[in-house]
Order: sequence, then structure tokens, then C-alpha cells
Amino acid sequence: MRAAVMRNRELVVDHIDAPVPSAGEVLVKTLACGICGSDLHALKHAHTMNEMSDSAFKMDLSRDIVMGHEFCAEVLDFGPGTSKALKAGDRVCSVPITVRGGGSLSVGYSDLVPGGYSEQMVLFEPLLLKVPNGLSTDLAALTEPMAVGYHAVMKAGVQPGEVPLVIGCGPVGLAVILALKTLGIGPVVAADFSPARRKLAETVGADVVVDPAKSSPYEAWEHLASKDENGADIPPNPLTGGLTFRNGVYFECVGVPGVIDAMMKGAKRGCRIVVVGVCMEQDHILPLTGIGKELAMQFVLGYTPEEFAATLHNIAEGKLSVEPLITGRVGIEDVPQAFHDLADPEKHAKILVIP
Amino acid sequence: MRAAVMRNRELVVDHIDAPVPSAGEVLVKTLACGICGSDLHALKHAHTMNEMSDSAFKMDLSRDIVMGHEFCAEVLDFGPGTSKALKAGDRVCSVPITVRGGGSLSVGYSDLVPGGYSEQMVLFEPLLLKVPNGLSTDLAALTEPMAVGYHAVMKAGVQPGEVPLVIGCGPVGLAVILALKTLGIGPVVAADFSPARRKLAETVGADVVVDPAKSSPYEAWEHLASKDENGADIPPNPLTGGLTFRNGVYFECVGVPGVIDAMMKGAKRGCRIVVVGVCMEQDHILPLTGIGKELAMQFVLGYTPEEFAATLHNIAEGKLSVEPLITGRVGIEDVPQAFHDLADPEKHAKILVIP
Repeated sequence: MRAAVMRNRELVVDHIDAPVPSAGEVLVKTLACGICGSDLHALKHAHTMNEMSDSAFKMDLSRDIVMGHEFCAEVLDFGPGTSKALKAGDRVCSVPITVRGGGSLSVGYSDLVPGGYSEQMVLFEPLLLKVPNGLSTDLAALTEPMAVGYHAVMKAGVQPGEVPLVIGCGPVGLAVILALKTLGIGPVVAADFSPARRKLAETVGADVVVDPAKSSPYEAWEHLASKDENGADIPPNPLTGGLTFRNGVYFECVGVPGVIDAMMKGAKRGCRIVVVGVCMEQDHILPLTGIGKELAMQFVLGYTPEEFAATLHNIAEGKLSVEPLITGRVGIEDVPQAFHDLADPEKHAKILVIP
Repeated sequence: MRAAVMRNRELVVDHIDAPVPSAGEVLVKTLACGICGSDLHALKHAHTMNEMSDSAFKMDLSRDIVMGHEFCAEVLDFGPGTSKALKAGDRVCSVPITVRGGGSLSVGYSDLVPGGYSEQMVLFEPLLLKVPNGLSTDLAALTEPMAVGYHAVMKAGVQPGEVPLVIGCGPVGLAVILALKTLGIGPVVAADFSPARRKLAETVGADVVVDPAKSSPYEAWEHLASKDENGADIPPNPLTGGLTFRNGVYFECVGVPGVIDAMMKGAKRGCRIVVVGVCMEQDHILPLTGIGKELAMQFVLGYTPEEFAATLHNIAEGKLSVEPLITGRVGIEDVPQAFHDLADPEKHAKILVIP
């Protein structure tokens, strides 16, 4: 079958063997697979990622890796020991994990099973979720990245009345904004240097969108967070005369060195910083900044199977308007070019690979 | 009066004017004042500290600063507008803050009022707590540093059944261990390179004490946290066969660059790191480490007035055995030498200045 393969730190298109389902696995045809920013990172930093990861994500980088973990697929055939509750032809989404020999294995970051940048995959039957009737394949393929945003918001335990600030409006930041709005949390302040991404942030529901080159996202947040839920000014601190703010939850959705440090400096006392963006390089912070303001930080990754299922459900119900995120569609032959194009935030948010 | 003065980044002993109580303030005689690690830091990094601090802690470094914020004092006289509920001769502790012109002012990090490395101070009457009868002046002076440990544990929201690991057994780490034991939380694992400090950690109640030069504190924690509250092995994860651990709360009580990074690397999935040690330099972290394990971090500082009062009460009740922490007593003339001596963890934990 055709596949876009990570080989010697490069992405090449080649013929590889189709996978064969093991016990409990189902053979599927990839219908659509989103290209994730983590895959762009992984192409550069696979070795670091490997060192940091637990066993499910360890890759033998001397072998071919087919990435792609944001997929919608169609059931083709069943491996041994499967219940066959679904039928051939059913469309499915799945947490990108399969289970072999009692251990879990990543689908999309493994040298043992291919991810979605190929024509076929094997998935673990108990994890398959049938795509509800009427939901398009393209939108279903966005379940995975949207679940990342939903998980970040759930893990942060955002409370009604808190004011979120989302730094970075790529797919991760947009997923966070969408999750916040779906849960009725806001107003949401969002910031990105890219005009195209700011426009997307607005489209998916951010209440205030800031160009950090022109004005401070932290000041925009302060302006909003110094008013109560009815828009009235909160009385200043009687002792100091200083402004009083609602609780802040800041989402780091950029994933490059220096952003956490800048957010710590920009944050107000007691804020929580939720690190969703995946920075794979060494980063620097000033602990004293965090200490002086008693900041909290929560690093997050992935989602639970329940959060994944809730996200598919929310997309199907029309509660998550993910359509605007899809900015391009390519075949397998064009995956290397798409990786290149995604470097420009003006051109693209989410590109789907349609094998 | 005599005072140990921070002047041009050095500590000198000199005669300075005695303070005069403003409205609401009480003039006190310093009976005992502990030397805090933060003061040693401040002597080196006052400029950085100044830049990072909010208004109450801004110092004009071109003027004399008398540090010292861990004190027990005796009431001498009353300023205008005081209620005089206490009497001259009463012994008091206080959160090291006074209030002037509606703004709060640090006692110990200010060029406007002297701290406890001097014969007299002015304190804010509403914040004064009378030292309970029978509690010695020396032990009462430990209220402030012990409140720091108590606050760290409260802010971390440690739950029964969680297993704490304390990295660094200087006064801050010892205060954390004491607070944990007073609250009935444990077993507590503690680590320090210094034999004297390890002995102190044992004395104040740490259950397992590790020399990081010889064995890993993280492995010691894992050994303990893989057993349930009755000491029985927790069954391994049925899917992966790997060990299952109780929740971890790791306290950073060192405050030098690299410790947070090492703790993130040593931590198990889902651990919370509570940053109590005050690192005033730039530090480095690998965000990917935090992300892969979904770590949480809580920076903490100080305590609430309620936590301060509870700590004084706990010391008076004999619930916090702080006596072993006092390793020396000096007069004002010897404060510069004491600052020097405190650099050696084998010699000292807490030195009290007795003016």
C-alpha cells in the first residue's frame, strides 16, 4: 500500500506492506487523517521524544514509521478473537492506540503498526467508536485534536466565573477555545500573531482576540477579568486600591521555548497556566516569578477514552463547530508538501490526508 | 540603636536611628530573630528580588536595609491611634508586615522600617499575636519559618493517602516535614546531601531519609508509594504489568537551578511538585517531561494570617517540635559571621539573633 513514511528524519512516499490484524484487532481503510503539529515536531525531534516517552510511544527510529493519529476509517476485515459487533463498511474513530501482548502501542508513533498517512491501519476493536449517521468523515477525523482541547479544559478544572486566556490559535488553541465555549465558559481571550488564525479564533467563538504585536494579551485579559459576570467593574482592593481580578486560567498552546516564561511574567497572582502546547526543546523559567504570584502550572497530554467519545458526540450534535478548521485536503503523495505548507500559519490550520 | 545593616550589597553592623511608631503601630524590643535563607539570597540577589516583587517588597537599595522577619518581640510603647489591648512587657509575634498610609510594608525587606536584626522595630498592632504563657521566646521566633511549611502543605491540598517527598532538609524542608507530620500525613520521604540535615529530618519525623549521593530519593519514594496504607504491595497495572503508585506530592525545598528539572524527571505520572524553595536565578525545564507525565506544579510563598496564628498555636501546644532546628545564637555584632556560617549545612540549621 502507499504511505508517507518517516525514514532517516525525512518524510518520503513509498510502497510498504499492508498491516495484518493481530488478536483483537480490526483492519481498516483510512478515509481521512489530519496532520498534527506534533508530527511536524516529531520529524525534527523524534529522538528527544523517544527518550522522554514511556513504552507505548518508543519508536525504533532505524525502521520506517508511518505517522498519523487523527483519523476516521472504514472497517475492512477482522482479526482473530474479535467480536465483530461492527460490520465491514462501518465508519469508525478510535483513540490511536492498539493493544498487543498485554501492552499498548501507539497508532501513529510506532514502527510496528502504521498510522493514518497510509491506506490501511489496524485498530483495537474494543476502542472503536462508530461514527454517528449523518456526521461527515472529515469532521469525524477532527475528534482526536478536539479531544485534546476538551481534556485540557477538563484537567484544568475550569470553574464558571473564571476567565480563560488562550495563547496561540493553531489547532490546539482552537480546540481549547471550542471546548471552553461548548462548556459555556467565558469570556475567552485569545492571542496569535497570525491574522488568519486570529480570524479562525473569532469564528470558533473567542470573545476578544488580540494581536500580540500590537497590544498585550495580558492587558486584554486584565480589562475583561476586572469586570464581573454582568460587565460591571469589580471594586478595587480596599487595602491597596489595586484592581481585583477574577481567577485566570491561561492556556499555553504554542509549544515553543520562552512562551511559558512570558505567560508567567504576564500572569496575575494566583493564575493557573495549563501547558497544552508540546515544546520538545529545553525551556527557561524564572521560579521567582511563579513564587511571587503563587502561580500553578498543569501540564496536560491526550485525553481519556471517555473524553474522546464525548468529543465525537459533541461534534455529531453540532456543539463543536469544527468545520472552519479544515483548510486543505491532500492525497498521500502530497503529505511531504503539506508538512511544508503547515509551517505557514496564514495558509493552513488543519490539512486532512485523504488516502 | 545597634543593627546589622545591608548597605551596598554587604552586611555591616552600625548605629542607626531607632524607629518611631506611626498611626496604628507599636514600638517593640526585638527579643529573638531567626536568620532566613532568603536573607542570604537577598544579600546576593536584592536587585532581582526587587524587580520581581510587588510594591510591599520594593526596596530603595541605595538606602540602609535592616533585614530579619522571623521574630519574637516585647511591647515597649504605642503609636497614635492604637487600642493598647496589649501591655508593655507583653511578648508578641507578628506576620512581618506593617500598614502605613493604606499600603502594606514588609518588615525585614524595606528601607522604611527596620527588621529584626536590630534592637527595636515597629509592628502593626492589629497583626500582633501574644505569645502564649509558657512558650519560650526562642521557639516563638520560629513561628514564621514554620508557617511557610504549613502554608506549602495547605496550598498543595495534600490528601490523606498521598505520599510526600521532601527534597532539601534546610529550615524550609524541615518546616514542611513538621507540617506534614502534624497534619498526620505520611509516610514522608526526605532527602539531603548533608548528614547533619538528614539527622535533623529524622529527628523531626521524616519516615525515610535518603542521601542522594548514595541512592535515589525517587526510588525510595517509589518503594514506599507502591505499598498501600497497611504496607501491602499495591497490585500492578493489569494492562501493562507495571507498578501502581499512590499519589505523589514532591516539595522542592532547595531553591537552586536544576532542582525542579531533576524532580520533574524523577517524578511519576500525575505527581504534583510544590515549589517552596526560592530560586532567584533563571532555571531550565524540559516541558516535554511534564507533559508526558501530566505533572502539576504549584509555586507557593508565605502564609495567610490564619496559618501564621495556627502555627504559633501548634508550637505552643507542643505539636510542632521545633527545638532541634535551633543550632546557634548570636548577638547583633556577629550577624555577618552568622550569615557566613550558615553557608555550611553541617554547622547550622537556624541561627537566632538575640539583640
